[in-house]
Order: sequence, then C-alpha cells, then structure tokens
Amino acid sequence: MKRVLIINGPNLNLLGTREPGVYGDRTLDDIMAASVDHGEQLGLAVKSVQHNAEGDIIDALHDTRDSYEAVIINPGAFTHYSFAIRDAIAAIGLPTVEVYLSNIHAREGFRHTSVTAPVCVGQIAGFGPESYLAALDAVARILDRG
Amino acid sequence: MKRVLIINGPNLNLLGTREPGVYGDRTLDDIMAASVDHGEQLGLAVKSVQHNAEGDIIDALHDTRDSYEAVIINPGAFTHYSFAIRDAIAAIGLPTVEVYLSNIHAREGFRHTSVTAPVCVGQIAGFGPESYLAALDAVARILDRG
Amino acid sequence: MKRVLIINGPNLNLLGTREPGVYGDRTLDDIMAASVDHGEQLGLAVKSVQHNAEGDIIDALHDTRDSYEAVIINPGAFTHYSFAIRDAIAAIGLPTVEVYLSNIHAREGFRHTSVTAPVCVGQIAGFGPESYLAALDAVARILDRG
Amino acid sequence: MKRVLIINGPNLNLLGTREPGVYGDRTLDDIMAASVDHGEQLGLAVKSVQHNAEGDIIDALHDTRDSYEAVIINPGAFTHYSFAIRDAIAAIGLPTVEVYLSNIHAREGFRHTSVTAPVCVGQIAGFGPESYLAALDAVARILDRG
Amino acid sequence: MKRVLIINGPNLNLLGTREPGVYGDRTLDDIMAASVDHGEQLGLAVKSVQHNAEGDIIDALHDTRDSYEAVIINPGAFTHYSFAIRDAIAAIGLPTVEVYLSNIHAREGFRHTSVTAPVCVGQIAGFGPESYLAALDAVARILDRG
Amino acid sequence: MKRVLIINGPNLNLLGTREPGVYGDRTLDDIMAASVDHGEQLGLAVKSVQHNAEGDIIDALHDTRDSYEAVIINPGAFTHYSFAIRDAIAAIGLPTVEVYLSNIHAREGFRHTSVTAPVCVGQIAGFGPESYLAALDAVARILDRG
Amino acid sequence: MKRVLIINGPNLNLLGTREPGVYGDRTLDDIMAASVDHGEQLGLAVKSVQHNAEGDIIDALHDTRDSYEAVIINPGAFTHYSFAIRDAIAAIGLPTVEVYLSNIHAREGFRHTSVTAPVCVGQIAGFGPESYLAALDAVARILDRG
Amino acid sequence: MKRVLIINGPNLNLLGTREPGVYGDRTLDDIMAASVDHGEQLGLAVKSVQHNAEGDIIDALHDTRDSYEAVIINPGAFTHYSFAIRDAIAAIGLPTVEVYLSNIHAREGFRHTSVTAPVCVGQIAGFGPESYLAALDAVARILDRG
Amino acid sequence: MKRVLIINGPNLNLLGTREPGVYGDRTLDDIMAASVDHGEQLGLAVKSVQHNAEGDIIDALHDTRDSYEAVIINPGAFTHYSFAIRDAIAAIGLPTVEVYLSNIHAREGFRHTSVTAPVCVGQIAGFGPESYLAALDAVARILDRG
Amino acid sequence: MKRVLIINGPNLNLLGTREPGVYGDRTLDDIMAASVDHGEQLGLAVKSVQHNAEGDIIDALHDTRDSYEAVIINPGAFTHYSFAIRDAIAAIGLPTVEVYLSNIHAREGFRHTSVTAPVCVGQIAGFGPESYLAALDAVARILDRG
Amino acid sequence: MKRVLIINGPNLNLLGTREPGVYGDRTLDDIMAASVDHGEQLGLAVKSVQHNAEGDIIDALHDTRDSYEAVIINPGAFTHYSFAIRDAIAAIGLPTVEVYLSNIHAREGFRHTSVTAPVCVGQIAGFGPESYLAALDAVARILDRG
Amino acid sequence: MKRVLIINGPNLNLLGTREPGVYGDRTLDDIMAASVDHGEQLGLAVKSVQHNAEGDIIDALHDTRDSYEAVIINPGAFTHYSFAIRDAIAAIGLPTVEVYLSNIHAREGFRHTSVTAPVCVGQIAGFGPESYLAALDAVARILDRG
Repeated sequence: MKRVLIINGPNLNLLGTREPGVYGDRTLDDIMAASVDHGEQLGLAVKSVQHNAEGDIIDALHDTRDSYEAVIINPGAFTHYSFAIRDAIAAIGLPTVEVYLSNIHAREGFRHTSVTAPVCVGQIAGFGPESYLAALDAVARILDRG
Repeated sequence: MKRVLIINGPNLNLLGTREPGVYGDRTLDDIMAASVDHGEQLGLAVKSVQHNAEGDIIDALHDTRDSYEAVIINPGAFTHYSFAIRDAIAAIGLPTVEVYLSNIHAREGFRHTSVTAPVCVGQIAGFGPESYLAALDAVARILDRG
Repeated sequence: MKRVLIINGPNLNLLGTREPGVYGDRTLDDIMAASVDHGEQLGLAVKSVQHNAEGDIIDALHDTRDSYEAVIINPGAFTHYSFAIRDAIAAIGLPTVEVYLSNIHAREGFRHTSVTAPVCVGQIAGFGPESYLAALDAVARILDRG
Repeated sequence: MKRVLIINGPNLNLLGTREPGVYGDRTLDDIMAASVDHGEQLGLAVKSVQHNAEGDIIDALHDTRDSYEAVIINPGAFTHYSFAIRDAIAAIGLPTVEVYLSNIHAREGFRHTSVTAPVCVGQIAGFGPESYLAALDAVARILDRG
Repeated sequence: MKRVLIINGPNLNLLGTREPGVYGDRTLDDIMAASVDHGEQLGLAVKSVQHNAEGDIIDALHDTRDSYEAVIINPGAFTHYSFAIRDAIAAIGLPTVEVYLSNIHAREGFRHTSVTAPVCVGQIAGFGPESYLAALDAVARILDRG
Repeated sequence: MKRVLIINGPNLNLLGTREPGVYGDRTLDDIMAASVDHGEQLGLAVKSVQHNAEGDIIDALHDTRDSYEAVIINPGAFTHYSFAIRDAIAAIGLPTVEVYLSNIHAREGFRHTSVTAPVCVGQIAGFGPESYLAALDAVARILDRG
Repeated sequence: MKRVLIINGPNLNLLGTREPGVYGDRTLDDIMAASVDHGEQLGLAVKSVQHNAEGDIIDALHDTRDSYEAVIINPGAFTHYSFAIRDAIAAIGLPTVEVYLSNIHAREGFRHTSVTAPVCVGQIAGFGPESYLAALDAVARILDRG
Repeated sequence: MKRVLIINGPNLNLLGTREPGVYGDRTLDDIMAASVDHGEQLGLAVKSVQHNAEGDIIDALHDTRDSYEAVIINPGAFTHYSFAIRDAIAAIGLPTVEVYLSNIHAREGFRHTSVTAPVCVGQIAGFGPESYLAALDAVARILDRG
Repeated sequence: MKRVLIINGPNLNLLGTREPGVYGDRTLDDIMAASVDHGEQLGLAVKSVQHNAEGDIIDALHDTRDSYEAVIINPGAFTHYSFAIRDAIAAIGLPTVEVYLSNIHAREGFRHTSVTAPVCVGQIAGFGPESYLAALDAVARILDRG
Repeated sequence: MKRVLIINGPNLNLLGTREPGVYGDRTLDDIMAASVDHGEQLGLAVKSVQHNAEGDIIDALHDTRDSYEAVIINPGAFTHYSFAIRDAIAAIGLPTVEVYLSNIHAREGFRHTSVTAPVCVGQIAGFGPESYLAALDAVARILDRG
Repeated sequence: MKRVLIINGPNLNLLGTREPGVYGDRTLDDIMAASVDHGEQLGLAVKSVQHNAEGDIIDALHDTRDSYEAVIINPGAFTHYSFAIRDAIAAIGLPTVEVYLSNIHAREGFRHTSVTAPVCVGQIAGFGPESYLAALDAVARILDRG
Repeated sequence: MKRVLIINGPNLNLLGTREPGVYGDRTLDDIMAASVDHGEQLGLAVKSVQHNAEGDIIDALHDTRDSYEAVIINPGAFTHYSFAIRDAIAAIGLPTVEVYLSNIHAREGFRHTSVTAPVCVGQIAGFGPESYLAALDAVARILDRG
C-alpha cells in the first residue's frame, strides 16, 4: 500500500470555527478522517499533520523522504511567501500536490500568487473539503503510473 | 442523470501531436472518451466540444444554460486574456471548473495569470489527461451537494 | 436620413437574464428597439448587430464604410484587450462612440482600461440602456455639425 | 422642476481662448447658457458654477445637498488626483455625472486616470460642449426613474 | 497649560451625516467638544479648525508656530496626495500626530498611502472618534517628556 | 475585569539594548510592567508574551480565543510579510490593535507595508513605549462600547 | 518546389485604403501577387490567406502541417495579445517568420510587445510591402539549409 | 520695459525659517527684492506673489495674460501633483520658467517628478536664491529673441 | 553604385568562437565577405566595421554622412541601453536597418528591449548570418525607391 | 582565539542529497568540518548550527552576542523575505558575512533579492562549499583589523 | 581667474546640423565661443571639450581636479544611463552644473530620468545655447560664495 | 603557474582619494600590489589593468582568452548597465569572479542590480581591498579543482 502524507499549514486547525463563510463548517479532523477513508478506497495509506510553524512544515517535508511515496500539501498562507517551503518541496523529490479549500483566485490579490506551485505536480483549488479527495484521486493515478 | 459539458479551447485538437514533452501523447478524442466513461461511473452524462475560436466558446457556454448542470473548461491560452469568456462563464451561472493538462504555474510567466479563474468554482492543473477525471469527480460532488 | 450602426459585443445577447444586479433586466432586443425609435426621432436610421466573436465585429466595422455615417459600439469585454477592434475602428474612419451600460470605472480593476477609447470620438458609460440613447443624441449632434 | 447644478473645475473659465485646437472656441458662458436652455426643455432648472480652487468645488458639492437633485461635474484636471473631491461626491449622495469636453482617453497618459469616476453614476467624454447636453439628457432620465 | 490645535481636513464637516456606515454618526462638533473636555483633563488647551481647502490647512499649520505646542491633524483625503501639507508639517517643526477615524488600511488601495505620515511623530487610525482622544493622550505624553 | 493579551514579535526581547537610537533605551519588561499598571487603572487585566517565531505567535493568537477579550500586537518585522499571522488575527475574531514603537512610515520603504493592518481594528505607531499605553486606552474604549 | 503560406491577420484586407500615411497605398492583393512572383523566382510556391478572426488564423496554422514547409505571418494586432496564436505557431513545428509593414517599435507603446515573436524563427518589420519579400528571401534560405 | 511675474508656491513664505539646512537662511522678501533689482539691470519690471493655495496660483497665472510677458514659477510641492497648475500654464501661453531653490533630483524620490515641467520653457534647480536670478537671465534672453 | 556601411557592435569580433550554440560557427569576416558579395549582386558597395566601444560606433555613424547612402547596424548589447547610439542614428538622417543574428525575442528578458529600434527604418532578427543578407535586400529596395 | 558562529538556514541539512546539480554532493557536516579546520588555521574557533525554523535562527543570532565575535550566515531561502532575520542581524551588532553556495544571481528571479544583505558586512556567493572558506578568510581579516 | 571646464557629450559635435527643429541651428563651436566670451565677462576662464565616448568624458572629469574650479556638463544621452559618469562627478568633488539645450521633460519618457542630476549642484534645461550662459552665471555665483 | 587578470573598471584609478568614507584610503596600486603578493602565495601569476572605458574592458576581456586561466573583475558602475561587458564575460568562457569594495546592497537602489553577476562564477562584495584577496582565494580553489 502506497503511503501519502497530507500536510496542513497554519490556521487550518481552526477549520469549522474560522470564518465559516469562506472555509465551510467542517473541522480538520473531520476532513482528515474522510481523507483517510477515501485513501483506503484508493489503496493509499493516508496520514496527516497540521503545523502553524513554517519550520515544522519543512521538517515534516524532510521526514517524508523515507516513509512516503507522495505528499499533499495545503500550505495555507505560506503559499504566498515561503520560499523555504518551496525549496523543501523541491528538495524531497516526491510528487507533491497543492490543495486549497477556497478558490484563491477569487479572493484578495495577494492570494493569487503561489510561490510553491511551480515545484508541485499540480494544483487543486476551490472545492472545499473535497479538494483533498480530488488530490488523493490525483495522487493515486500518479502513483499508479509510476 | 446530470449533464456536464467539457469545453476545450484552442489548439487542444492537436493533443498527442503537439509538443508531447509538455502535453503528453494521448489525443483529445482519447481523453474525452475516457472522460465520458469516467462520467458514466459517476452518474454524469458527459459531452465535449473543442473550439479554436473565442466566439465559438462563448456560444458554447451560452448554450449550456438549458441543457447542462455543470461545465468543465480548459480554456487553453484564452485563460490568460479572454475577459469575454470570463464574462460568459459569470453570465451562465452554472458551476464551472477550470482544468489544465500542465502545471501552468511551472511554465512561462504569462501562463501564471488566469483571468477566468475568479469566476470558476475551482481550478485543477498539472495532472495531464487525469486533470479532466479529477474535474469530473469534483463536479459530481458539487452536483451531489446541490 | 443618416444611418447609424450599433454594434454590440460578446455576451450582450444575454442582457436581461445575465447578472441583472449589474446589467439591469431589459433585454437587448428591447433596448435596440428603443434605440431605433429614439434614432427616428433624431432623424437617424438605426440598425444594430450583436456578435460574440471578435472577427465578426471587425467584419461588421469594415462593412460600415459604405452604408453608414456613424457607429456606436459597446465592445463588451473586448474593450479591455482587442487591439484588433481598435485598429478596425481607426481604419474605417467613421465617427465612433463607445457606450457601456455600467460604470466600468466602479467595477473590477481590469475594466478600467479601454484600448478602444483612444480611437473613438468619445465615451458614454454608466447609464444603463439609456447610455445608448445618449450616444444616439451625441451622434446626431456630431452628424449635424459634419 | 428638478434642480441640477453644473460644477466646472479649474481653467474652464478660459474656454474659448485656451488651446482652441483641443477645447474648441466656445466660451463657458456660452456653453452654460446652452445648458440652461437645454435643461429647460427637459424640465430641469440648471445652475452652474466655475471654480479654480479645489476647496470651493468641495464647498459647492456640500451645498448641493439641500438645493439640488443632481450634479453634473467637469472636474478638469482635478479628476486625476483630487481624492478630496471624490470623497465629497460620495458624501453628498446625489446622482453625479462626470463630463469632459475632450476624449481624455486620446490624450496624455496621466489623463486616462479618473479618481472621481468610481463614485459618479457615469461618464460622458469627448463631445465638446455637447458633452454637457448629453449629461443633462442622462440626468433627466435618471431623475425620471427616481 | 500646553496648547494643541486639532486640524480637520476636507469633508469632515459632514461627519455624522456622511456615510455613517464608514464614519459613524457623531458630528464633528460633538467629537471636538469631547476632545476639548478630554484635553482639559490632560491639562491641554485644545482648539480645533476644519477646512475643505488645502491652502487653508497650510495657513493653519503655519499659524500654529507662535500659539501652539503640538498639532493633531486628520488630513482627510489630502493625506494621499498633498505634498504641500507634508512640507508645511515639516516646516513648522512642532510635534504633529496624524489621526484617522477609520482603519485606512482596510479600505480602498489608494487610502493605504499617506504622504504626510513620514513627517509626523506617529499615526493613530481606526478607533472612530476615539482616535482623537488617543491622539490627545499621546500628545500629552510627548509634551510631558519635552 | 476584561482580559487583554499583548503579543510582542521578533527581536522585541532585545529592546533597550538594540539600536537605542531607533527603539529607545527601555527594556520590554519595563514597558510590559508599565502596560500592566496602566491596564489596571483602566480596569483591564493585561498579560503579555514575546516570541521570535511566527508559529508561536500564531499559537498565541489561537489561544486567546477562550481567555481574552482583546489583543494588542506588535508584530515586529512580521507585519511586512506574515500572511499567516494575518489569517490568524482574522480567524480569532477578537478586536486586535496593532502597535509600533517607531513611526514605520518614516523608515525604510519595506516598513511602509503592513499585511496585518487590514484585519486589525486600528493602528498606533510612533510613540515609543507609550504606543502600548495608547493602545490600551483604545482597547478599553472598544470593550466599553462592546 | 517548397510551399509557403502567408497568413495575414485582422484589418490587412483594408490595406491601401486604411491610414495610408502609416501603411502605404498598395492593396493586399497587390502585395500578395508580388509575393507570389518573388516566391517563384526563389523556387517557392506561395499561397496566402487573410483572416480577421483569431480562430480562423489558428485553423490556417493547423492546416499548414500537411501542405506547407514554412509559414510567414503578419498577425496584425493579434501579435500584442494572442497567446492562442502563439501556441498554434509553437504546435505546428514549421519555421515561421513574423513580418510587419510598419516599424512597430516606432509606434504606440502597446505595439512594442509581441507575444508571438518568441516562437517564430525571426522577425522582419518596417519595410512596407517589401517586408514580405525579405521574409520570403529569409524563408528560402532557411529551407535551403534544411 | 518687459514685465515678469514671479509666482511662489506653498510654504515659500516660511523661507529663512523653514529647514535652513535645506533651503538656506534668506527670507522670501529678501530674495524677491534681489530679483527685482536684478530684473531692473536686465530691463525687466519684476513683480512677485506668494500663495499657499493652488486655486490662487491658478488665478495668478490667468491674470498674467494681460499684464505680463513672461512668468517665473516656483510651484513648491505642487510641481509633483498639480495637473491643474500644469493646465493653467499651458493655457496662458506665456513663456514660463520653472525654478527650485534646492536640487530636487538629490532629495526624496517623490521630488524627482515634475508634472509642470513639460509645459514650461525650461527648468533651473539647485542654486538657492540664485536660481531666481538665473531664471531672470534666461527670461531676459527669451524676451530679447521674441 | 550606392554605398552601404555595416556597423557591427561589441563582441561580434568573436563570432564563430563565442557561444556557437547561440550565434553559429561562422566568423564575422566570413559573414562580412558574404555581405560584400551579396551587395555587389544588388549593386551596392558594402563596407563594414566592428567596434567594441560605444564611442567608436557613434563616430562611425557620424562619418557615414558624407560617404554612404544607408547603414546596417548590429548594435549587439548596446541596443538595450545606448541612448547615445540612438541619438547618433537619429542625427545622421540616413536610412538605417537594425539586424540581429539571433531572435532576441526568444532570449533573456533584457534582450526584448531595443532603444535603437524606434529611430531605425526597420528590424531584421533571427536568421543568423542571413539577417545581414536580408538587410541588404531591404536596403537595396529602400534606395531604389529613394 | 576569536569565536565565529556559522548559521545555516532551512534545507541546508539536506546538502549532498538535495538537487546535487545545483548544490553539489558534499554534506553539510563535511563542509562544516572543513570550515572548522580552516578556521583553526586562521586562528578562529568556529562553531556551526543549522535550523529550518526562522525563529530558531533569530534565537541563534541573539545568543551570539555574548559568545562570539563574528557571524557567518547562509540564510537559505529566508534571505528573500525574512525581515525578522534582517532585524536580528542589525540588532546584535556583530560583523556578519552572508554566504551562498550557488550564484543566486544566475538562478530564478526571486533569488536575486536579498533583504538581509544591506545589514551584513558583505556577501560571498557562488563558490560552493568554498564560499564558507572565503567567508572565514574575510572574517579573519575583519577581526584582525578590529 | 577661476577656471571652468565645459564638457559636451555624445552627438553634440553635430549641433547645428542635427535635428535643428529640436536642437537649433547654431554649431557647438559657435556656442562654445559665446560661452568663452560670457565667461570672460564674469571673470571666468572657460575651456571646453566634446567627446562621444563615455570613457573620454570620465577621463576629462578626472583631469579637472588639478586645473579647474568648476565643471559644466551636458552629458547628452549619457545622462539617462551612465552611472560611471555619475560616479566620476561624485569623485572629483568640484561643483558641477548639468545643462541641456532642450527641455528634456517635454520629450520622450526616457529623457525624463537623469542619473547624473543627483550628484550635480543643479540643473538648467530648455534654454537652447543660452542654457550654457545661464550655467556660467550660476557657476560664477557659486565660486563667488566659495 | 596559473595566470589571473584583475580588471578594474571606471573611477577605480581614483581609489584612496575618491570618497574615502565609502571606498577607504588605500590606492589601487597599493591594492593591486597586495593582490600580486597574495597571488604569489597561492601560486597564481596576477596581473591587473584599469580602464575607464567600457570598450577597453571588453577588449581586455577578449585578450584574456589566450593568456589567462581566470579573471577577477570589479566592473565599477558598469555592473549596473553594461550588457556589452556581460556578453564579453559570457563569450570568453573563463571562470570570472565579480568583486566590489563596498557592500553594494547597502547603498543606493541602483547599485543593487548587477547585470554582469549572472554570467560570473560568483560575487564577493563588501570587504574593502580584501575583497580582492578573497577573490584570489576563490579563484585558486576553482583552478585547483579544474
């Protein structure tokens, strides 16, 4: 069974309580549970972490190198400025898929720029919690091909 | 059965022959056939069109209003400048998902801007032909909630 | 009787149904009928066309050269990027008035730029369907002077 | 009878003598007289003022609140930088129409930006003295609807 | 008793009536009376003026040199472009505190730039009428140190 | 008694020793003690933290949700780029006041931009240690109204 | 005999009548006839088309793949924004030479940018109708080397 | 005897007291007296005015049309944004020379832009009070040629 | 026989040895010999110079005024910043054609700007050594018309 | 013996495994060992740390104040946006030398900007592991002078 | 007698023949002779040089250090980009006055930027050959004060 | 013995006399002598040249091809705009190290851009005369590896 790590960035621990008009009312635990289930159906062993600190996300990315075949990352606001996370993604050499709950292109101007996108395989944005399921589908297909 | 129209923009008719290093070697017919199949499994009646002309894409978008419940669009290069297609997507009021074969964020600078993204539900980029399948998954979930 | 062609650009065929909060609830046929009536009162023979395709608008502009004395154009979203329509307006050499239903200066940033404005006689924006009537008044005065 | 104030900005007192190639050879008195006449035909009581000082224009805008139903303003060069006049227009809450004698979009780059346009109902530019008449037509229609 | 002049810029005379959603419903007289009271408690003799004209504000700044120990200024929209007021503040050499009723950083882009801020001691924005009271507190502390 | 948390960002632990020409010679402990005192006079229970790590500041912001009624934050250099802290402030939903010791508008260009300002209630800058006291005054007034 | 297609973009059908001060007084038929003649001398079978519609130009480019060895294109105003035509040129894989009648670098700022130039072999601009002949010379030499 | 008006803009009345490190220690009266003397030697009748209000400067410019043959203007900070003064200079049609006491190119970035320079004959900056004398020399030579 | 001077800019003396992947493997002597031959066939007496120094190129341009009827210039890197060479081309008043070996539009961003292009008759880029031959063809046609 | 701390930023722990084409194949331990050796020859006691977290780097910088005479820092990607690290370097007041393994000026555009460079003594980039040795040489010379 | 060197930059040797509409019809020899005469009246020994090469101008600037008390420079097009000449002016430490024949602010955009202005004493532009005389007047006054 | 040429750009001949606050008080001869000595210790035969003219620097670079194994260049102000020197460095194909006496990143904005850096091996800036010694160390290590 292929292993996939989902890395959730800053403030995502508040999901379900934070600005539900923008981010919906389901909690991160909820969504991660659904992701584990969906992964199982796809033959993927899914684990997830959430970190508010950039350094912890970099460490988590480094740690995937031995234990995972692919990464799904929702870098939260770090996507707009963390060249350090970008470098970490490029360094680990695993297929990495970027996901967003909201359509970042329909929000404030600063959210239209992703410094991490160029080093990911692809980007899925705007489908709420289901962005994660779509990312798992994509990862499954990528690993099938590999 | 919910109906979904996939609209393919300029030059996508050349898929499989055009710059395979960037776009892969499967033809558009191939990919659309796979999309119809995948749609069927999801309970979606999928049709597709391809147009090189901006006006034809606008017409196709207008025509969806009576016959479709959702749209998947790969606007090709029009995504970077066609405010007219953007207005058409906003006008029809159907959930619309933007897809790209390649990771547009990893290519030339002009491809990082999408004028159509803000009026779509979300964006899926970088998974090759499987971007379409992921988009269909996403559409199925959106229509399920509806 | 002086002849005036009103050229309506992309998506204006949806008027009355499309985003009525922004564009009002009258249809284009309605507004064009009112324009023909208003033109008659001003001694102007008014015809109108609507095209979603940039090429068709260019053709329509070219065709005015033998049959019309003036042009009123609502280029829709083309105003923001169609240098080809700009060139066509400059080429035909007829007085051309640019109209917009909404106040484009009070909307998204990209709508503040008009590449066609510099080659038109003038610009009328923000008065809803009555922008057309004001444009006809202006054209009547221009042709009176001529 | 509805009352309309026309506010003319800096240097417009020189009309008829100032750069006639750009602004024409009719004086402001002339044009205002024609505007009063045209207003009468439309059932509008038109008054006008001209000020070279930004503060005086702001005062004139404030004073309209009790005595007028609509404003037509040619802010002259203030349109390009007077956020104070913009705030005054927004504050008084009357329908305000912006007019220009020349097509500001066909002149120097700095004239393409209007900081006052977003808080006006609409904009009429490029028809010489007749821009004012067109603005009165527009105001009449707006007040009719009201 | 130290003397402080509060200078209020354009359109602030409309406070309480102008866009209460943005600026609140208290009149300027009201707020200035509260400021005088608050000043008294702090041992400050507070006077205030309001001007819609940039030149009058410059004159008022010049006149403070003999009669005041500090200035509080709400330059209104002039903050965004009046380099002449900036020069006047720099010229008089008195400690000057900039205040805003609303959080200018949470509004339109053009309101994020203050050309006067660099020559003031500091900036207080976003607390409604109480911005003035906080500014008086700050001035009292500055003059105590002096 | 209302509870207020003061969050101090990176390098503020060096206050009193670091570039005293810019930041003054009082230590952070000093200033926080004065803030606790001042809070008491205003009926506010003030606590404070200082963190050099962005993630710790985000955690501190999250933790305020159950234990505090308001936040005062001096984000230090994070104000110029930490969209993650911005998101955290927006997420917690408590009134948050931004303070700076120095007048950031009178320093290097990069210090003129605050990405956190738009989600705070207001901003106080330039009064040295007394910026904190003014912020407490402001918070007291906000909570009084609440 | 090598076959070359000359593709002429929007408004070029008006050559000889349109702004002769800028574009000269020879018609497109004239210039194309001269090009066919010149091609013959070079051993090239030259055909030409003219289209005002972007989609038609894309179709024409696609159709060259089986029937031509090289393309000469005067994209007219499309050169400034048609990323779709750019993609088509890149897709067909034939040597393509860009020509302009006028020196686009000596005209309005927007004409200085060519989005199609990077995917062409080279660019010839400013020699009037003889730009086409120079392009044919260049194509002949390219095909000779091939 | 040719008549020349020297117009001094905002804050120049403070000369000699305001920031002597930048502007020197001579008063405006002093400098204007020296200018009158120098004018006399050149056969020029020199008068001067000083205004802090933009509107007054525009009025002064308008009034020169009957009574003066040339204008020397130190627009102070207005040079950086007053398009209204620019329009007034262009409107009066007299040779106008722009002067500055300090070298505006060696100061803050915003002082490097002059919106009035393009409509003046020339610009003299950086020579302190003697900038006025040099401007009078230049005006004398211009009027000699006329 | 009409005389044409070909001016080659900095580093072109290294042709054939310098980055052959970009510039080809033919030496400048080679290419100039071919140009002289091609000129002869066209009835043109062709001479050429090469200079690494901007001042020498300006001198060479000045010297053409008595001895040549046209100039072909490959300014090398000077095209991107030498306003002095631009002024020299404008000053001599001879028809000047700009040539480049490589397609400058397909290389680094800084190579997309030519400050000399606006004062030349036209521009030929991308055809390797044959750019010179095409330029000679163009010059021959220009001089034939003259 | 003078003490020097080498601070290595995010992802440098992966050296030798991460993108060896860009960063070489020696590990950080290797390079640090060589640096300690080289330091010894220069009479410098060298220690080193590596941190992926910005806060840890700030802490490390603060801690140098009592125990070190100089700092060498390779901030990794933080150099492009960490104004907090910049402030920490400025605050500690020790001579600090910035090093990079690769020539950051020859890579992606975002790597050309260093927000930390202005507060360091100097910058050494592009020599692979030997950048550290060169930095130690430079530090030795700086401390010799001190 | 104080000695002044006038340095004339590229293309100024063509004065009188080059674009007389822009630069007038007097030769440089003429203007320099008039400058020597004018200098004599002011008690200044004036010499002049003209160079088309940037390096020669730098050498000339260096050589002034022993033999001159002031420099007048018309850098021609070098003013827009020669940071090397700027450094030379700053290095020699003599008062240097920048002159231009034409009003550079009324010409093409690139001529509005002077990289040399910030290190000169002042700038005189727009008075044709008399710009030099005004510069000599200014230099005479500067040296009188010295 | 490997040979290294040190090329010094414009104004460096003034070292020791020019702005010693910025550049120190040692002459170039001094520094070059120290460089020769240091080179000898490293087994490098060091020669040096200094040129104020861009063309001479290009020639010197070209001449290194037969006689040197590496180049150290301090391009002075040319680093900010000489694309011609950049091309020369790229053309010669020798390892080239860029050095600066001062920390160019801590000075005026225009000094932060180096157009030559991308084609050099690396960059050493900010260590005064010792920048050259560090560069020689770096070159020695590069040539050792070669």
